[in-house]
Parts: sequence; structure tokens; C-alpha cells
Amino acid sequence: MTPEAGVSSRRERKKEATHARIVDAATELFRRQGYQATSIENITDAADVAPRTFYAYFDAKVDVAMVQLEYWVGELETALHARPASETPDQMYAAALADLGSRGFVTGQRLRDESGQSFPPMGVGLLLAETEPEVAGRIYQILVRLQASMTSLFRQRLDLPPGSIEPHVVAGAITASWFVAVHGFTEMAASHDDPPSTDELGIRSFALYASGLDKLWTGATTPAGPGHGPDASGHASLEGGEEVR
Amino acid sequence: MTPEAGVSSRRERKKEATHARIVDAATELFRRQGYQATSIENITDAADVAPRTFYAYFDAKVDVAMVQLEYWVGELETALHARPASETPDQMYAAALADLGSRGFVTGQRLRDESGQSFPPMGVGLLLAETEPEVAGRIYQILVRLQASMTSLFRQRLDLPPGSIEPHVVAGAITASWFVAVHGFTEMAASHDDPPSTDELGIRSFALYASGLDKLWTGATTPAGPGHGPDASGHASLEGGEEVR
Repeated sequence: MTPEAGVSSRRERKKEATHARIVDAATELFRRQGYQATSIENITDAADVAPRTFYAYFDAKVDVAMVQLEYWVGELETALHARPASETPDQMYAAALADLGSRGFVTGQRLRDESGQSFPPMGVGLLLAETEPEVAGRIYQILVRLQASMTSLFRQRLDLPPGSIEPHVVAGAITASWFVAVHGFTEMAASHDDPPSTDELGIRSFALYASGLDKLWTGATTPAGPGHGPDASGHASLEGGEEVR
Repeated sequence: MTPEAGVSSRRERKKEATHARIVDAATELFRRQGYQATSIENITDAADVAPRTFYAYFDAKVDVAMVQLEYWVGELETALHARPASETPDQMYAAALADLGSRGFVTGQRLRDESGQSFPPMGVGLLLAETEPEVAGRIYQILVRLQASMTSLFRQRLDLPPGSIEPHVVAGAITASWFVAVHGFTEMAASHDDPPSTDELGIRSFALYASGLDKLWTGATTPAGPGHGPDASGHASLEGGEEVR
């Protein structure tokens, strides 16, 4: 390693540490005193950095709240694009989530970066969306961008003509699976001691879109009830027990 | 009709007319000069009402921008809840959209109220979401509420146990179909002289989730190409021609 590379690497590490300190301080303040009541000055005080340092990393408060979701969505897109052309969309989605998981993105719990350092829970940012229009707006814009990028990817992978609706529909299954994972998880986490992870909920959701929802109303399902395991219908009742891990 | 009912009905009509005047004026200003540049004073001036009249109808500027989407989503929810218990979710969704259509909700074109009076295009509000976080935030919150309400409805209709993921997934197909309709329509409207309506895109999208996306990658599809019509795969290429009306 050249001395210059050593300096650059030290600088890089210092930058990452400052970034993480700002995000951690902001998340803790959002959680404790709310988003509106937290000023950028509060954040820089708590992170022990100068106010102008904040603006070297972020444009606005909402960027700190959304940093984890934006990072996760960006990594998901990269992982999906990196899947081999031989895989089908359901395989791509499951493999991309598994790839992120193996790199420490433990959704439904905490998100960790490559060095194992934990980010604050994505849930803090998502919960803020319930009351903060600015945060909700950023989530919507992230989803619209994800939907557009996935539409291009699936149009190319499935070799569908421009102007066809199918790539939008396949991309929509990812958007919907995200919705199901996040909002289904929120509901389940409130009533179950050990809810399935958001990744698991997302994969089950996409699998149902892939295999067809109509099995849920054509009578092809095994009747739901305690103790019944996973079946060909893709039924994933939390009451079932063994399939929730 | 009693004299009191006559007065009340005249008042009601006057209120509706004032409401419509504010919405029309605001939409025209948003379209012409942008959302940020339009103040509530600009809107009340253009609608020829007193500023305090604005606040009798709306809490904030974003409420005017979103009035049409909120109204449409509310009517969609009502129409879905009103469908008979014998219908399956795909039938409920198609019938609810048809019901709204028969009452003058012509999506992809203009929205009309029961008396045939046109609302400003929903598209103006949706386009604002691209740049206005406040508007995007409201859309996200509308979608989250729709998703929760549809989850309850489908849990009950499909007789699924609390804590099961399936009702979330079926509700997610409506959320995703909305995304496909709106964003697919935007893309298609830019490149096609006569794009399918958003209703039609939504119904096709939901039908694909119902019958299963996997037919798009298991080779069960008729190869896409000019001139081929609708087929058992639900393939809805705009290049196909005859199925786009």
C-alpha cells in the first residue's frame, strides 16, 4: 500500500465513522423526541460534529431518516441486476434477498454494513412515515424509482417488447412484496413474539404472485388451521407453526 | 320537499360548487406555474373566494392537490366492500372499477362527479408527486391506508385467520395494480397515441397476479410479436393491437 492510499483509506474510514455517528444520533433523537422536534442542530450536538459537517453528508433531515432504506433498496437493485440471466424473477428476488442477508442486511431486526457495524433499524424511518409527510414522500419516491428500474430489468430479462404491460406487473410484485413485508411485519410484530422476518414475508409474497393468487379462492388450498405445514398452495399462515421460521 | 330541505339542498349545491371552483383553480395554477409557486392566496384569488373560505374546505394546499385521488380511492374501497360475498377478489376488483366507470370515473382521462361535472385530471396530482415530497407523502399514506383496509376486507372474504399473510398479499395486488396502472399509463401515454385506460391496465395487472406471473417465464406464453391477440397467458402486449382497446 502506498502512503497516499493509506491516508486515503484512513480518511475514508473517518468519513464513514462520522456518517454513522450522525445517523445513529439522529435515529435515537427521532425515536426519543420525534421527527418534528428534532432539529439539525440537535443532531449535530448529539453526534458531536459541526453543523456544516452535517451538510457535507446530507442535504436535509429527511435524508438521514431515509438513509437506511435508500441504501437497502440500492443494494437490492444491484443484487437483482447481478443475478444470472438463467434465473427467473422469483429466483432472482429470493437470491438477491439471500445475498443481502449474507452480507449482514438482517431486515426485521437490524441492518449491518459490511464491517458488521449496525445501522439503526429501518423501522424507525418507516414508522416516521405514518405521521411525517416528508418521510412518507421520500418512501413513495424510492418505490417509484425501484418500480421503474425493476420494470426495465424484467423487460430485458423476459425479453418483452417495449410498451408491454408485463414487466410493469412483475416489477409491481416486488413493490407489493415490499409493502406486504413491511406492513405485514408491523402487524405481526405487534401480535407475535417471533414474527417471520421481512425477507421471509417478501419471498412468500412474491411466490404467491408467481404461482397465482387464485388458488386462495378456487378451493385448492389446504384449509388453514393450527399445525398444518407448508403446502403446495404456498399458504403461509402464521398459525400454522412450523413454516414461520 | 320541505322548505328546510330546499334551503339545505341549495346550500349543499353552493358548497359543492365552491369546492369545485377551488379545486379547478388550484389545479390550473399547479399545472401552469408549479406547486411551490402557487400560494393559497393565489388559489383563493383565482377561485374568487375569501382566504378563510379555503380553510372551510381544506386544511392545506396538499389536500387540494390530492382531493381527487382521495375521493377515487374512497369510492373504490366503498365499491369493493359493496361487492357480493360470492365474488372472488379478481371479480370484485374488476366489478368495482366498472362500477366507478359507470358513475363517470373515467380514469386515464378525466374524473367526473355524479352530476357529470369534471374534476381536474388525477394526473396533475400524481405528476406533482415526482417533485413535491408533500404530495408524494400523501399518496404513500393513501396507499398504506388502502392496503390496510383491503387486507381486512380480503381476510374476512377469504375467511383467513388473523396473522396470516395471504390477505396482505391479495391487498398488495391491488396496490401493485394501482402502481402498474398509474406508472405504466404514464409511460404508455408518452409513446402511444391511444394507450389503454388505467382501469384496463389495473384489471390486467390484477388478473396476472391472480392467474400467476410464472407463466411469463415458464415458456407457457405465446411469443410476443405484432398482431398476436389475447391468449390464455393473459399476455397484454400493446404491440398486439386488438386487445388494447
